Amino acid sequence: MDKKKPQLYTCLSPALLHLYDVSDSIVVIIDILRATSTITTALKNGAKSIIPVDSVAECIRIGKQIAAITAGERDGQIAEGLQYGNSPFEYPESFVAGKTLVLTTTNGTKLLHMALDRGAKEIIIGSFCNLDTVCDYLIKKNKPVVLACAAWKDRVNIEDSLFAGAVIKKVKEQFTINCDASQIAETMFTNASSDLFEFMKEKEASHYKRLSSFGLEKDIMFCLTPNTSNVLPFYTDGKLIKKPGII
Amino acid sequence: MDKKKPQLYTCLSPALLHLYDVSDSIVVIIDILRATSTITTALKNGAKSIIPVDSVAECIRIGKQIAAITAGERDGQIAEGLQYGNSPFEYPESFVAGKTLVLTTTNGTKLLHMALDRGAKEIIIGSFCNLDTVCDYLIKKNKPVVLACAAWKDRVNIEDSLFAGAVIKKVKEQFTINCDASQIAETMFTNASSDLFEFMKEKEASHYKRLSSFGLEKDIMFCLTPNTSNVLPFYTDGKLIKKPGII
Repeated sequence: MDKKKPQLYTCLSPALLHLYDVSDSIVVIIDILRATSTITTALKNGAKSIIPVDSVAECIRIGKQIAAITAGERDGQIAEGLQYGNSPFEYPESFVAGKTLVLTTTNGTKLLHMALDRGAKEIIIGSFCNLDTVCDYLIKKNKPVVLACAAWKDRVNIEDSLFAGAVIKKVKEQFTINCDASQIAETMFTNASSDLFEFMKEKEASHYKRLSSFGLEKDIMFCLTPNTSNVLPFYTDGKLIKKPGII
Repeated sequence: MDKKKPQLYTCLSPALLHLYDVSDSIVVIIDILRATSTITTALKNGAKSIIPVDSVAECIRIGKQIAAITAGERDGQIAEGLQYGNSPFEYPESFVAGKTLVLTTTNGTKLLHMALDRGAKEIIIGSFCNLDTVCDYLIKKNKPVVLACAAWKDRVNIEDSLFAGAVIKKVKEQFTINCDASQIAETMFTNASSDLFEFMKEKEASHYKRLSSFGLEKDIMFCLTPNTSNVLPFYTDGKLIKKPGII
């Protein structure tokens, strides 16, 4: 019976992506603090689309070309030359509805392009903000899955692993999981699930320390809160938009 | 006060080794199933030295040249052309005392050479077999540490992470740990510590499944048993020998 279930893998760092077959899988891009949380929230709040780009220079160039909002961060702060940062609170409905964002971030947007370069045909965006929507979709599609963590400059991080674990806990009965990284992620989430924020604080997660040193505990709290959104961002024709029929 | 404590990092896969400065650290090579457990046990049982090599061909060549025992595995089984495998039970005192082994394994010996290529000057071998000896040494030396997991063909594995976590639990007060991978390893070990074997079985660790399918539960059990040995294997002049003054 297990043979009929599709495989699910967790990739804990972009530097390990080559180990997984992304071309025949749904690839879930995970960058909890904060790219994928912000993308999900901006689309929920009515953004028309989000164009993920690799570099600040390209962000500025495309932003001018199509008169879009330029947004992004490097090392957790607004990148020089861009208008906005990578906080979900910067994109309320009153500001973002109907608009296009061009976004570049330290880890998340880079990983998305790596997955494309490796032949990924279906890329979706996962965050605690849209946890249940992602899980429902993966179960419905019944295809192989790679949970791809953006990590921090290729170093494995706690928050992306926790989200992978949260997904695994919800979908594991529907998948064949022969992947130690997935077991590690699920164990982490099981440990942390009673209070993700406290867990991050107690474990001195490196990104918790980085963002809280900028006074961004509010962002961390929001990005760890499940199901504030029911949109499923997916990548098509160079941009991220809401999957039709999901909301 | 923390500033005086040396840094400790955990590298969960050889494919992430480039992220860490191994040249100025004590590098602990970890390949629990089974290379580092076997190396530790063979030296404890009186082997003169162990020459770790990358390939089966080199193993055979050097074995002939110096009339040493050729040993090693590929994919968990004795590699073709070699005399012995990678089980600690193959190297009792009655067989191995005074002898030299030339050893090649899928992951552990490769990682050791990667660390050398990256400029590591002090390489020691860690396994549950010599857990306390490794920890005592790291505390005594008071230098930066990289706990380097051999993983499985670059995929993060449970057993090497568990050992890294066991070390961290014992030494963490003496080190500065700003490393999510270390927190993940320690959380895993804390979850598993009451019964490592049962944990590996319950989590369907990929290497547990691989070795138990060959009837090697006895090896797994032994490799997860702490402190059966008090030797500290270290690398010098192309070979692994017992650190003098430790036993």
